[in-house]
Amino acid sequence: MTASAHRWPVAVLGATGAVGQAFVRLLEDHPWFDLVEVAASERSAGKPYREAARWMEGVLPAAVAAMPVLACTPHAVRAPIVFSALDASVAGEVEAAFAQAGRLVLSNAKNYRMERDVPLVIPEVNGDHLALLAEQRVKRGWTGGIVTNANCAVTVIAMALAPLHAAFGVRKLFASTMQAVSGAGYPGVPSLDILGNVIPYIGDEEPKIETELVKLLGRYAQDHIESAAIITSAHANRVAVEHGHTVCLSVACDRVVTPDAAREVMRAWTGYAGVHGLPSAPVPPLIVRDELDRPQPRRDAPMGRGMAVTVGRIRPDPLFDVRLVAMAHNVVRGAAGGSILNAELLVSTGQLAGLVAP
Amino acid sequence: MTASAHRWPVAVLGATGAVGQAFVRLLEDHPWFDLVEVAASERSAGKPYREAARWMEGVLPAAVAAMPVLACTPHAVRAPIVFSALDASVAGEVEAAFAQAGRLVLSNAKNYRMERDVPLVIPEVNGDHLALLAEQRVKRGWTGGIVTNANCAVTVIAMALAPLHAAFGVRKLFASTMQAVSGAGYPGVPSLDILGNVIPYIGDEEPKIETELVKLLGRYAQDHIESAAIITSAHANRVAVEHGHTVCLSVACDRVVTPDAAREVMRAWTGYAGVHGLPSAPVPPLIVRDELDRPQPRRDAPMGRGMAVTVGRIRPDPLFDVRLVAMAHNVVRGAAGGSILNAELLVSTGQLAGLVAP
Amino acid sequence: MTASAHRWPVAVLGATGAVGQAFVRLLEDHPWFDLVEVAASERSAGKPYREAARWMEGVLPAAVAAMPVLACTPHAVRAPIVFSALDASVAGEVEAAFAQAGRLVLSNAKNYRMERDVPLVIPEVNGDHLALLAEQRVKRGWTGGIVTNANCAVTVIAMALAPLHAAFGVRKLFASTMQAVSGAGYPGVPSLDILGNVIPYIGDEEPKIETELVKLLGRYAQDHIESAAIITSAHANRVAVEHGHTVCLSVACDRVVTPDAAREVMRAWTGYAGVHGLPSAPVPPLIVRDELDRPQPRRDAPMGRGMAVTVGRIRPDPLFDVRLVAMAHNVVRGAAGGSILNAELLVSTGQLAGLVAP
Amino acid sequence: MTASAHRWPVAVLGATGAVGQAFVRLLEDHPWFDLVEVAASERSAGKPYREAARWMEGVLPAAVAAMPVLACTPHAVRAPIVFSALDASVAGEVEAAFAQAGRLVLSNAKNYRMERDVPLVIPEVNGDHLALLAEQRVKRGWTGGIVTNANCAVTVIAMALAPLHAAFGVRKLFASTMQAVSGAGYPGVPSLDILGNVIPYIGDEEPKIETELVKLLGRYAQDHIESAAIITSAHANRVAVEHGHTVCLSVACDRVVTPDAAREVMRAWTGYAGVHGLPSAPVPPLIVRDELDRPQPRRDAPMGRGMAVTVGRIRPDPLFDVRLVAMAHNVVRGAAGGSILNAELLVSTGQLAGLVAP
Repeated sequence: MTASAHRWPVAVLGATGAVGQAFVRLLEDHPWFDLVEVAASERSAGKPYREAARWMEGVLPAAVAAMPVLACTPHAVRAPIVFSALDASVAGEVEAAFAQAGRLVLSNAKNYRMERDVPLVIPEVNGDHLALLAEQRVKRGWTGGIVTNANCAVTVIAMALAPLHAAFGVRKLFASTMQAVSGAGYPGVPSLDILGNVIPYIGDEEPKIETELVKLLGRYAQDHIESAAIITSAHANRVAVEHGHTVCLSVACDRVVTPDAAREVMRAWTGYAGVHGLPSAPVPPLIVRDELDRPQPRRDAPMGRGMAVTVGRIRPDPLFDVRLVAMAHNVVRGAAGGSILNAELLVSTGQLAGLVAP
Repeated sequence: MTASAHRWPVAVLGATGAVGQAFVRLLEDHPWFDLVEVAASERSAGKPYREAARWMEGVLPAAVAAMPVLACTPHAVRAPIVFSALDASVAGEVEAAFAQAGRLVLSNAKNYRMERDVPLVIPEVNGDHLALLAEQRVKRGWTGGIVTNANCAVTVIAMALAPLHAAFGVRKLFASTMQAVSGAGYPGVPSLDILGNVIPYIGDEEPKIETELVKLLGRYAQDHIESAAIITSAHANRVAVEHGHTVCLSVACDRVVTPDAAREVMRAWTGYAGVHGLPSAPVPPLIVRDELDRPQPRRDAPMGRGMAVTVGRIRPDPLFDVRLVAMAHNVVRGAAGGSILNAELLVSTGQLAGLVAP
Repeated sequence: MTASAHRWPVAVLGATGAVGQAFVRLLEDHPWFDLVEVAASERSAGKPYREAARWMEGVLPAAVAAMPVLACTPHAVRAPIVFSALDASVAGEVEAAFAQAGRLVLSNAKNYRMERDVPLVIPEVNGDHLALLAEQRVKRGWTGGIVTNANCAVTVIAMALAPLHAAFGVRKLFASTMQAVSGAGYPGVPSLDILGNVIPYIGDEEPKIETELVKLLGRYAQDHIESAAIITSAHANRVAVEHGHTVCLSVACDRVVTPDAAREVMRAWTGYAGVHGLPSAPVPPLIVRDELDRPQPRRDAPMGRGMAVTVGRIRPDPLFDVRLVAMAHNVVRGAAGGSILNAELLVSTGQLAGLVAP
Repeated sequence: MTASAHRWPVAVLGATGAVGQAFVRLLEDHPWFDLVEVAASERSAGKPYREAARWMEGVLPAAVAAMPVLACTPHAVRAPIVFSALDASVAGEVEAAFAQAGRLVLSNAKNYRMERDVPLVIPEVNGDHLALLAEQRVKRGWTGGIVTNANCAVTVIAMALAPLHAAFGVRKLFASTMQAVSGAGYPGVPSLDILGNVIPYIGDEEPKIETELVKLLGRYAQDHIESAAIITSAHANRVAVEHGHTVCLSVACDRVVTPDAAREVMRAWTGYAGVHGLPSAPVPPLIVRDELDRPQPRRDAPMGRGMAVTVGRIRPDPLFDVRLVAMAHNVVRGAAGGSILNAELLVSTGQLAGLVAP
């Protein structure tokens, strides 16, 4: 198919939550995808979307407002491409059912990310890992498949490190995050916990950072990913920010790396060639700032329509090689937008051939 | 003198600012010190304190409200003990003038902290370093002297590490801070910069953390301090918190240290013996919490009347030995309260003998 | 009994929530009351309090930490005085059961507030209304009874208006509130809704303000309260504040009232004589400030240990007579502390005679 | 001229501040205006704009970044149309100098707003008041002129009331505001004052609300404006919101008005006919929402690209006729965007004939 000729019908699972709403927002007027179905939990099923979802940001697209909320089954939902914002507690079974029924599932849940035959992909970083889909179909007997995107904090880190890893070989990493409340969904973090406060803990986040990163920066090797040899010490914190995860990084590499050299490779980086020209791909993927006090989540999270990662404060590190700060919009780049970019890459590289044509 | 018999007259320099006001608050009803004079910049001099200061927290003590604001000179201010909340731009000259005039200056400014003959002291951590005062008087020909307390972020770190350093020998350190706006004084951080935001930069803070820490944890050696052999990679961030600096730490030591062993030495730690029983000394100095999500600045900064340091999340570190989070009230423990505790230690150890008796 | 001779055993129902925790905090070392039992929902019953409650502010008193959480029945809970922080959905039945079983219930729930024979009391404002208890016992055949305190926003308004109403006869009122998130309990307001935002709606709050106020400022008439003839236009808003409800008021009175006259009667006001000297009664009950920009919730909510109401900006009103701003701590003065003061007044006036002696 | 044929060269005075930056942002790619000059105080003059301004929101347009900052004199600045974001302390003289030199000044300062011959205009509300310009030129002998836009809080109120006033005759008004920190400019409100707090006072704001409103809703009568007969009781508050002033309103009218009738006239309102089709005019100017909890500043301030006013909670009022809440973006609709819309109206109605053609 020619992507621009017509649009693929797509559905959103878990469409009423915070990430689900972001999918609905980002898919409005998408040049390649046509949002035709929304699905959510039993509680919402049957209601019009406008009643089932407490719409939180911007204007709810009129076409979606009137859609009936469907059940999350491949029987109720017919679209060949399915964006999943489901909670991990249900994503495991539901996503497998869709994949088995021949649909391509773009998942935000953690359930399948670390499975050997499931692509965990940030297109600019490791778009070539999508090739795992073939292995997945063979091994599981699925006609569809599951492609996952990374945890929202890891996404920021992997994007910032990808050019450094390619040029210098990252080996050790200290990563301390300051994460926005939208990362916890809705209702998520109680205001009594976070107003004027810091919560120095996010359940299960540090292990995700430490394990997903090495798969993302790993090497595709036929039927699996060879993990990158990077050891990470992660600290995950919640702060009183609406959108945008900020991460402080100290990085040790195999080869000598100066701040100037780091800046240069980051500025020059355009990511995996397959993403160039995709509708949601930010140009450039990394915005390198020279001001002393950037990136900042409230000011920089909207950059590249939420898809760019902003880095700054690239400076020498007394212990490792370089220190820097990276930040991106956790709901767009770190969740819904990342999934859409994954889907665009699949479309543009013809990997949807196995799916029923739209 | 017997400390309890009567009270030393004390003055506060820079009394109208945020730290100056904290001195006034903390000195109300102090058992050993009697606040008899307040001084500030030319602009305020001559006005009653209540008019010169925009009082910000709690109830302004009536006795102080009526005091005339004096000029910051040893001629205008007569008290033998002087707490200085002066800005670094003026502290250098003013504090020296007071020391030369025979007064003991407890300084919050950075100017003299790293001078070879000036004690940089957190009483529980290195109360013995006050012995440098003798060297200082000889070398500078002062009859008074200057004792400094540490930068507010370093104070949190040094308190948390002191027992670990004593037991295991700290060698490498990652420190990522999330600092309260009160650390920048008043008016300080504009609300447009910090509401719903993170600023990943605080001018001059990372070098202070890296240099002051090794002096604080160093060893007193006759006429100077032998720096501790600790290399630190620091990241300083400002967050939307009123009071309380939170620091994420990854720590590598000379000797093997498990989280349990770390917790144990921290729980057992009572600090330099000289501080036991001092009016402002918190008991215990370190509060070790087992909950997953503590310390938190809004909830834990008031602990020990603002003087305790709270630590938590002591856990293994993939790169170094242990990871943890430490937090304390930056204006009390990290500034005014720290100075007062320094003064109490000087009084209790008889080191004020050189001063004119009150 | 002589209140000071020994202490009444008391219990807290709904002890694990935000208001319940405030009761536990405020009852620590109370001179007249001894917290001997805590009760909560089925889910918590049986667990030690420290495990059932996610303790949020300050240090959990050790004695309470170890208490087993009881069921909310007069069979399980034996104390003669019972502070209820129960949710309105269950308070109706539970509180009646306790009253019938001979206990005195100090309720924070809305269920009984507007019942003709139930005292709705802010001690300084209408402590004499407690006399309704006699009628209540006769009418309902209860040996115990229920005394309610007012909605937290109304409490601020009624305290500020009581002296004006007594002196000038309040007739019309505009009241626009800016209420803290703690008023919604825990987890309460999601942070995604309130960070950097205002929510101009609080369910059921405006009707409560309009109806409770006329009962509070009404006149005790044998067996009922004659409502005050005050018409109120209320606007209730939620703002990003932890504790402290702020209310803007425009007030029209029967008699001419100037700002100076208003200030004078407010400053002179000491409230219902019965409260003088009670342990939790703030002195003065109203703090009148002359600064242009006070009261402010973060700075003034702690005044009088959370029990004082602070008023300011008393100025002429182009439409009515005077405008002013009033503010108080919604969890202390507006909830738990108000209930405790009600209980103290009952003890001091001997109205607990009907209860089993402690 | 045909507005679409070519673009008028325009300048911004006070271009480095918060409102000045908003002008620069909103004028990027404007179809009728071409930003050719930026001017600011002596301190900035001569520097490139990118160095003089601490750019705060979005991406600084490259063309402007390189512009040299000019002095605020009609000699240095040559554009015929001048947007002024000057502070009131200097606006008086500077704006007059520009008007005298034949330039049209669109002013955000308060200095000239209440002058009898100066238009105070919100285009949808009272676009016909621009006719005062003719009187102004005659009276002052200016070849240019000054047109002012209203205070940011008044703008919200006047927009919400305009259709009610036209249909029912507004007579009395209670207005309680909750205003964003950006209304105070930069650095503006210190974070220590507003984090987790409310400041119930904004200097000079309540008088502005009470006086500007009656001019805005007044009637053009040849050479002056007949004030509307509306009496307002205003309460101005600052809250921890970045952008968006929220106002609670209780409204009494000459004629009977029900909530339904109010909603209907607001929904039907399109404003002064001259604004229809102007590039910056939002359609509709008033967004009427039916949800219980809207408008909210963080969610609704961006509506209509910051130019729409959102109203909600239209309900009966116990004292007056109707109660409602109105909200708009204070920096866009309430400042820079309002000025630009004024200029567009002047262009489209041919009132720039007296100016040197661009």
